[in-house]
Amino acid sequence: MADQHAQSGEDKRPNDKPAIRWEEPPEGPVLVLLDQTRLPAEEVELVCTDASALVDAIQSLAVRGAPLLGIAGAYGVALAAARGYDVGEAANVLAGARPTAVNLAVGVRRAQAAHEAALARGGSTGQAAEAALAAARQLHEQDAEASARMAQHGLALLDELLPAGGHRILTHCNTGSLVSGGEGTAFAVALAAHRAGRLRRLWVDETRPLLQGARLTAYEAARSGIAYTLLTDNAAGSLFAAGEVDAVLIGADRIAADGSVANKVGSYPLAVLARYHHVPFIVVAPVTTVDLGTPDGASIEVEQRPGYEVTEITAPQVPVTGAGGGIPVAPLGTQAYNPAFDVTPPELVTAIVTEEGAVSPVTAEALAEMCARSRQVTIS
Amino acid sequence: MADQHAQSGEDKRPNDKPAIRWEEPPEGPVLVLLDQTRLPAEEVELVCTDASALVDAIQSLAVRGAPLLGIAGAYGVALAAARGYDVGEAANVLAGARPTAVNLAVGVRRAQAAHEAALARGGSTGQAAEAALAAARQLHEQDAEASARMAQHGLALLDELLPAGGHRILTHCNTGSLVSGGEGTAFAVALAAHRAGRLRRLWVDETRPLLQGARLTAYEAARSGIAYTLLTDNAAGSLFAAGEVDAVLIGADRIAADGSVANKVGSYPLAVLARYHHVPFIVVAPVTTVDLGTPDGASIEVEQRPGYEVTEITAPQVPVTGAGGGIPVAPLGTQAYNPAFDVTPPELVTAIVTEEGAVSPVTAEALAEMCARSRQVTIS
Repeated sequence: MADQHAQSGEDKRPNDKPAIRWEEPPEGPVLVLLDQTRLPAEEVELVCTDASALVDAIQSLAVRGAPLLGIAGAYGVALAAARGYDVGEAANVLAGARPTAVNLAVGVRRAQAAHEAALARGGSTGQAAEAALAAARQLHEQDAEASARMAQHGLALLDELLPAGGHRILTHCNTGSLVSGGEGTAFAVALAAHRAGRLRRLWVDETRPLLQGARLTAYEAARSGIAYTLLTDNAAGSLFAAGEVDAVLIGADRIAADGSVANKVGSYPLAVLARYHHVPFIVVAPVTTVDLGTPDGASIEVEQRPGYEVTEITAPQVPVTGAGGGIPVAPLGTQAYNPAFDVTPPELVTAIVTEEGAVSPVTAEALAEMCARSRQVTIS
Repeated sequence: MADQHAQSGEDKRPNDKPAIRWEEPPEGPVLVLLDQTRLPAEEVELVCTDASALVDAIQSLAVRGAPLLGIAGAYGVALAAARGYDVGEAANVLAGARPTAVNLAVGVRRAQAAHEAALARGGSTGQAAEAALAAARQLHEQDAEASARMAQHGLALLDELLPAGGHRILTHCNTGSLVSGGEGTAFAVALAAHRAGRLRRLWVDETRPLLQGARLTAYEAARSGIAYTLLTDNAAGSLFAAGEVDAVLIGADRIAADGSVANKVGSYPLAVLARYHHVPFIVVAPVTTVDLGTPDGASIEVEQRPGYEVTEITAPQVPVTGAGGGIPVAPLGTQAYNPAFDVTPPELVTAIVTEEGAVSPVTAEALAEMCARSRQVTIS
């Protein structure tokens, strides 16, 4: 069950709440999530005591973003193990909570494997639960490290592609510390450019229908002191036409073996605009986002979300009136097309930046080689 | 002053309220507008008794859409004349109420010219006011006729470009009877295709920030029995990639002499997507939208609208909390880039359809020739 409470936050400033944390109060372990559906209006935490509550939080997008979903999934398995639930069942419902981001299933399976390995070694259920938690904590730490390395590689690539500096970067959706154990993916690169004094402007797409850009990226940019400007997704075209965009930086939810990138809906039109205007289109994601088991873009399952996300306006303080908890803006009965993601083919992607470095041009061979190198490092 | 009242609507169904009408109650003539900011939630009429109220209605987008702005501007001059205000002053504030749509100034100047000509002929102020009103009524009727002819030419072009039929049309913003003395521009073409049994699907872009697609085009499509589906503007890319769009049909606010088309922000990215996917991109607008005095796209003034349209969510029933009358969705102090329009260069436009026929390819010579032909017809 999930419980909501606004943290009183004694020794923390309210905006220092992490996106996810494991707590062990006397009543038993819990997973505490910053409810991203309520930002930036309120910083409310959701407390999950079982996998089912976490699945609800994942599906309502209270917790979201590919890397963070992996971390959340791993902690969810650890939570089920620590509280004595059926770990296999919990792992299955968690892994299937959302279909597109591959990181979720990767995180779940990693904690589950640690749990099973401990049992196979003759460990107690308590020891197995500890092993699952250790795996989740390790994934969390590794993601923070990967984030720092992606920022470094991404900034180096930007400086190479745009030697004049004064980068004006366009981004879509939300890819900062709210989606990561560290500072994020694409946003971490923009932040690194900002700290290096080489970010002139961050253009923030509002990212309809759920406004992750307006609500979350603007919140993170404001906290970081970045010079940012918000725009409707459809206004990006004018910026490209005016020569106001030097590069596009986005994250990814799944990268197929051929380099096709599934990311928040609206990414693909940016890739087409970027190509038309000869602007680099750069994808920043951890190696775990690359799924060599998915051969190409057509094989990526794209989640279709409820139509009311489009036909109703929802915002943290909007009173509930419509079926989806928002205010209807379209006539009753309006049918909506609402894919959560779109797929950008590799030929439109200038580079994929991971913690292992930049792959450019994006080819199946280069991606496979990068994944093999990463696996060697992880194993060694 | 403007007065708002919900029409009781005795012998009319509520949805039969026209976008604009001239009324002569005993208290003196008024211009009655269907308040488009309240649709589809409520059908409320705004009653204007002077040019200043009409300017407010134009700037708040209670009345909007290039052809309708021309008609409204002409009636506004007639209203000032009939009520004894300074006609030259009223014409100037009306013509400058919004900068991009050329039709507004064209309509204003036409009624003003009729007024001046009547005075120059030695007519009384009453006769001059009658002449201004006659000019406004004539523009209103001509727009309805032009709409019918655009629909006919547009459908012929669609059938020529897409001989297989079963058209799947993507449209942006709102271009139906709410913007016209008749059935509109681009929407009138889709409606003609629907009536001819050749429209398989109308894809309706929601059109952020003010959601004219979700609120108004969906409303008009539903009233007309068209099979339509609503989408966020950024989801159009997925439809193109999936081969689900056979043609794009949009209106225009100003067409420069070189064929550059200023239209609702988000039109240009659709033009780029259409080109990338080899899909026809068709602009439908009356000849009055062509402004031979504006040489090219760079010379078109693009209206910048307030940032709160982006940083706050507004919908007819949203309670007022933010500075702009909506609910804040972005952090306080967020700067927004909010152009009302964008400009599509002629090389991305497959055809411009007016009441005189289709111009394709779009060249300065072909446009000038079409305008000259239209002027001859009007004069003869």
